Amino acid sequence: MAPVGPRSGDAIFANVERVNAELFTLTYGAIVRQLLTDLEEVEEVNKQLDQMGYNIGIRLIDEFLAKSNVSRCVDFKETAEVIAKVGFKMFLGVTASVTNWDADGTCCSIVLEDNPLVDFVELPDTCQGLYYCNILSGVIRGALEMVSMKTEVTWAKDMLRGDDVFELQVKLLKQVPEEYPYKDDE
Amino acid sequence: MAPVGPRSGDAIFANVERVNAELFTLTYGAIVRQLLTDLEEVEEVNKQLDQMGYNIGIRLIDEFLAKSNVSRCVDFKETAEVIAKVGFKMFLGVTASVTNWDADGTCCSIVLEDNPLVDFVELPDTCQGLYYCNILSGVIRGALEMVSMKTEVTWAKDMLRGDDVFELQVKLLKQVPEEYPYKDDE
Repeated sequence: MAPVGPRSGDAIFANVERVNAELFTLTYGAIVRQLLTDLEEVEEVNKQLDQMGYNIGIRLIDEFLAKSNVSRCVDFKETAEVIAKVGFKMFLGVTASVTNWDADGTCCSIVLEDNPLVDFVELPDTCQGLYYCNILSGVIRGALEMVSMKTEVTWAKDMLRGDDVFELQVKLLKQVPEEYPYKDDE
Repeated sequence: MAPVGPRSGDAIFANVERVNAELFTLTYGAIVRQLLTDLEEVEEVNKQLDQMGYNIGIRLIDEFLAKSNVSRCVDFKETAEVIAKVGFKMFLGVTASVTNWDADGTCCSIVLEDNPLVDFVELPDTCQGLYYCNILSGVIRGALEMVSMKTEVTWAKDMLRGDDVFELQVKLLKQVPEEYPYKDDE
């Protein structure tokens, strides 16, 4: 069955319930600050943010599938495009692009030029090892795991570390074939 | 000088940058879960959420004043109405109402029937003392302190504890007269 074309991220974003982006940004900043205080080690904070993102991702995928009309993607390439064009728009209101595909189509970069998580953020010298937006990599990893793709998601570029964009490298480790208890073509 | 009429919360909310409410809800849930794990005592979590809210509130007030066209409120009564009708709409996309004024106009309740923070939330028995939304009381307290009102903000009703609405009691403790280094009527 050919996949149903996804609705545009803009159209979906216009119709979902939303909250003020600055409130979200400040709330996220409060989490990071809290974790830095409680855990002390920057490396531990990175891990915890990723884990929090993972827990969010495994739930957010339901909202995504319900609202986006995206059906099964034919391959990982399509999946990456849908995350960048539909997913980021639907949840954060920004669009990302996909680049740097490897030869066998199992590793790519998702590039974000605009990222509401980091408005007003500057990292002090004591936090140089911090991946401030690590929740995002966790969200993607969690969401993809729920559609049977085991991935590794890491930051290749980070504007808070002086890069010109945010770049997430998404590497497909394993794809488990889905088995449905019902037929796909009703 | 008569206060300039505030823009409606709806009009402002339509024009600010926003993110998906479910992402916000799940992110907030992740904070609370994290605090419960790290701090163990529910009472400590309540305090920490309030403090995080306070830190957010003292910054969010700037966005509020910049976007809402609200100028100085004539009294605490007007302030409470503006929080309920403009503030909640502008940041969370919901409207609240103001009731239960005491005789001297220094204590009232802000009542929320719809609260995006608690979508999908159920408190387990181990968290019965938790004020899950305590960040909100902190935000109000912090924001009001920045406009020279010392307040005490507490939960009178909480839907997660079985009440029919969320009700925040806001008590004005002290109002410091503002002194501007410039004249108000330019």
